[in-house]
Amino acid sequence: MLLDSHTKICIVGLGLLGGSYAAALSRQGYYVTGIARRQESVDYAAAHGMIARGSAFVDEKLLGEADLIVFSLYPHVFIEWIREHGSKLRPGTVITDVTGVKGCIVHEVQAMLPGGVEFIAAHPMAGRESSGIEYSDDRIFRGANYIVVPTEANSERAIEMCKALGETIGCKDISVLDAESHDRMIAFLSQLTHCIAVSLMCACDEPDLERYTGDSFRDLTRIANINDEMWSELFLANKDALLAEMDAYRACFDELRDCVANGDRERMREMMRLSTERRKRFNKKV
Amino acid sequence: MLLDSHTKICIVGLGLLGGSYAAALSRQGYYVTGIARRQESVDYAAAHGMIARGSAFVDEKLLGEADLIVFSLYPHVFIEWIREHGSKLRPGTVITDVTGVKGCIVHEVQAMLPGGVEFIAAHPMAGRESSGIEYSDDRIFRGANYIVVPTEANSERAIEMCKALGETIGCKDISVLDAESHDRMIAFLSQLTHCIAVSLMCACDEPDLERYTGDSFRDLTRIANINDEMWSELFLANKDALLAEMDAYRACFDELRDCVANGDRERMREMMRLSTERRKRFNKKV
Repeated sequence: MLLDSHTKICIVGLGLLGGSYAAALSRQGYYVTGIARRQESVDYAAAHGMIARGSAFVDEKLLGEADLIVFSLYPHVFIEWIREHGSKLRPGTVITDVTGVKGCIVHEVQAMLPGGVEFIAAHPMAGRESSGIEYSDDRIFRGANYIVVPTEANSERAIEMCKALGETIGCKDISVLDAESHDRMIAFLSQLTHCIAVSLMCACDEPDLERYTGDSFRDLTRIANINDEMWSELFLANKDALLAEMDAYRACFDELRDCVANGDRERMREMMRLSTERRKRFNKKV
Repeated sequence: MLLDSHTKICIVGLGLLGGSYAAALSRQGYYVTGIARRQESVDYAAAHGMIARGSAFVDEKLLGEADLIVFSLYPHVFIEWIREHGSKLRPGTVITDVTGVKGCIVHEVQAMLPGGVEFIAAHPMAGRESSGIEYSDDRIFRGANYIVVPTEANSERAIEMCKALGETIGCKDISVLDAESHDRMIAFLSQLTHCIAVSLMCACDEPDLERYTGDSFRDLTRIANINDEMWSELFLANKDALLAEMDAYRACFDELRDCVANGDRERMREMMRLSTERRKRFNKKV
């Protein structure tokens, strides 16, 4: 079984991403339910047609009827949830997630699950600077990348089901990486970029900067508006990979700085041509 | 005289910015002419209604009839142009520019001009990753900042005329800075951001990165697609200010790196909250 019109899907965690999953899947005609900590989030999701039913406690009936459960929680909350409630999951259920780091959770979660329940990890490369279900929007998945992160414990069936989920919510390019490769890629592409934006924003306290800025600074610092609770957890959960990417980047930055200091215009232009050439691959294909 | 329906404006240099000025001013009903090195640029501008007349040589008739001349040239080309052709400018003409650095040109240009010709420097904070008149578009000025950079040699009349020009092309916030302050601001807001994007793009050559990326990396590296000839000139023309900003930024980046290395989550979160707070000021007001 992949996804078909009879697949029942439960979303655990109705924040920005959970709400966006619920909205996308309901729009595609699936029967979607939701479990959240706050009753207001459940009510919001129901009122906006994102879920057919929901609960602000761990409702075993909702869990039991679901064929697929999507966990949209902070990493440590996800692990705690499985530790506390994993035994309530029905054999035959496939569970997946949206977590931004994988190595530190995927093996631990798989080891805790009862027999017959399979966890296939995934990471939709979509988000926003604002958190909470009120900001959820299924358009964030349009043209986005989606990474499935299987381990040796996963079945071909669950992997295919997870890929189908990524396509169903609207993602464009579905790829497969092992957990270690995923965490290295994400350290560079996502975590390092947030480190840069935060550092840049902290680096200057001149008044009135907003009156003099152009779009390049605005674009670079969009993600400097950051959820400090979530991102500090993600950074530390992927510490070694992130430090390696921070150091590799800083070596390039230092090289460019030396070019400026020494007036080495030729080497500076070489770096700029390399960056221009490489950047071409990254334009979004929607 | 500020700008009125009789003001004749000549654009020297019909590239991305020069073309966008010409388009914006023609759309507002001004009589606009253009001088460019390449006949094709002149033809393109005329064919697209950006200019009423143009020339691919330094046409003294076009210069003589202009009340206001906008130079949209690389810094060293602008200085060379004034050295070679400045004597052809008619007394009473006001000239302005779009150059991204000011300290290294404004005094030199003012000193070379014949009596009665006044240079008032300006910097529209607008641009694109692509160069050439084919990419020009007067919408780049919408909501953009515009900085007027007078020296003690400037008259109130020329300053007001230059401000009126910024408003006329569609810029939102017109401010005034001295050359040194401008160059310091721009080192941080514009040049440093380009250094970061280039360094980031140079730092990783993993294949298939584009399949795993999210929008944060795309936004941060948009300007990694960079005109190496122009930007290397701008970096070196503002070397001391740029080095100071690179070092200030790197100190913050290093501090964040140490937080990751040492697991100092509290300090990390403090930096994130500071960056979030500061970033709020930068949302574009259009």
